[in-house]
Amino acid sequence: MDQFQTVVRERRSANKFLKGIKIPREDFETIFEELSNAPSCFNLQHAHYYIGESEESLQQLYEASNKQYKVLTSSATIIVTGDKDAYKKASDIYEASKFLKIIDDEEYDNMLAAINGLYEYGGEAFQHDEAIRNASISSMLFLLLAKNIGWDTCPMIYFDQDKVRNIFNIPDNEVPVLMITMGKMDNTSARVRGYRKPQSEYVTFK
Amino acid sequence: MDQFQTVVRERRSANKFLKGIKIPREDFETIFEELSNAPSCFNLQHAHYYIGESEESLQQLYEASNKQYKVLTSSATIIVTGDKDAYKKASDIYEASKFLKIIDDEEYDNMLAAINGLYEYGGEAFQHDEAIRNASISSMLFLLLAKNIGWDTCPMIYFDQDKVRNIFNIPDNEVPVLMITMGKMDNTSARVRGYRKPQSEYVTFK
Repeated sequence: MDQFQTVVRERRSANKFLKGIKIPREDFETIFEELSNAPSCFNLQHAHYYIGESEESLQQLYEASNKQYKVLTSSATIIVTGDKDAYKKASDIYEASKFLKIIDDEEYDNMLAAINGLYEYGGEAFQHDEAIRNASISSMLFLLLAKNIGWDTCPMIYFDQDKVRNIFNIPDNEVPVLMITMGKMDNTSARVRGYRKPQSEYVTFK
Repeated sequence: MDQFQTVVRERRSANKFLKGIKIPREDFETIFEELSNAPSCFNLQHAHYYIGESEESLQQLYEASNKQYKVLTSSATIIVTGDKDAYKKASDIYEASKFLKIIDDEEYDNMLAAINGLYEYGGEAFQHDEAIRNASISSMLFLLLAKNIGWDTCPMIYFDQDKVRNIFNIPDNEVPVLMITMGKMDNTSARVRGYRKPQSEYVTFK
């Protein structure tokens, strides 16, 4: 088994964390540096990470999570959002790529036309789906990167969207996609991994 | 740099693949075996993988992708779907967990009540979002697992949903979430990775 597989297998959704442990800011920096390798549609980088780590933020997030106790024991609880308006900011990203000479003027124009075409044709529903899709893709890599430097996590979806918007002042163009609790897992609460379907039930070849 | 980081950094979205290379079935089995470690909401395992690998399937998928050439050069092109009705099949998964003595009768009843409560309260919109969220989370791990055993990929969203439904007979309860082309990257077409935003633009601490 290689070290990559070890990380994949050892990443578990934590039920409960050891209290009173702080995540060093450098660890977040390491994670986000590697997270920049995540793919996103047209490199639009839709995901935003709101990290609650103060006692006050965790208490508010605990309320917003319908009082799921693991939030209170976490070292940080994170809301990942996806930006429905990411396509409107394509020029920022592609101006930078042009400046870095990754693309030339013609490629810049073509790229912006393609992006606007796709997102405007798709409309509000597609923009919403894209926010969820790209933030979720980013989140999976976040969970693994955290594990790779020793932090346990749990992705969660049962939370009040309006309350988390208020806590972090999340603008309307961003969709709260996932809550992630993070810390050191309390192993006394560890369970066997749940039943997994056999491949034949979810893989089809043609 | 550890081997996990190497995989994360070397996974690139491929522009073009070397033609005529077949992916051994064992490689898919290895990937899906590890992919079973992916998290999903309430372990409902919403994702389904439809793998087109025959010449006929690839031709059809090329048409469905609005004639993106890389589909024709890929060894396989995959449609990942998310099941909006995954919550209705919770009893299958939790019966198995009960049989394996991972949970007892009371936990089984509580779990099913919680799942039904969440998905029925959320309604159609939440079920749709969940399909996209959970299939996207699974897909990111798929991309990394493929890279770990030497296969390159490219996640894509510009394709015709109705056409891919027809190719694979995808039922209405499943949402096509992502197209993934897979093969051996033609390195002559490799580009510099696009500009990435600095952390300060997408990470907020509180």
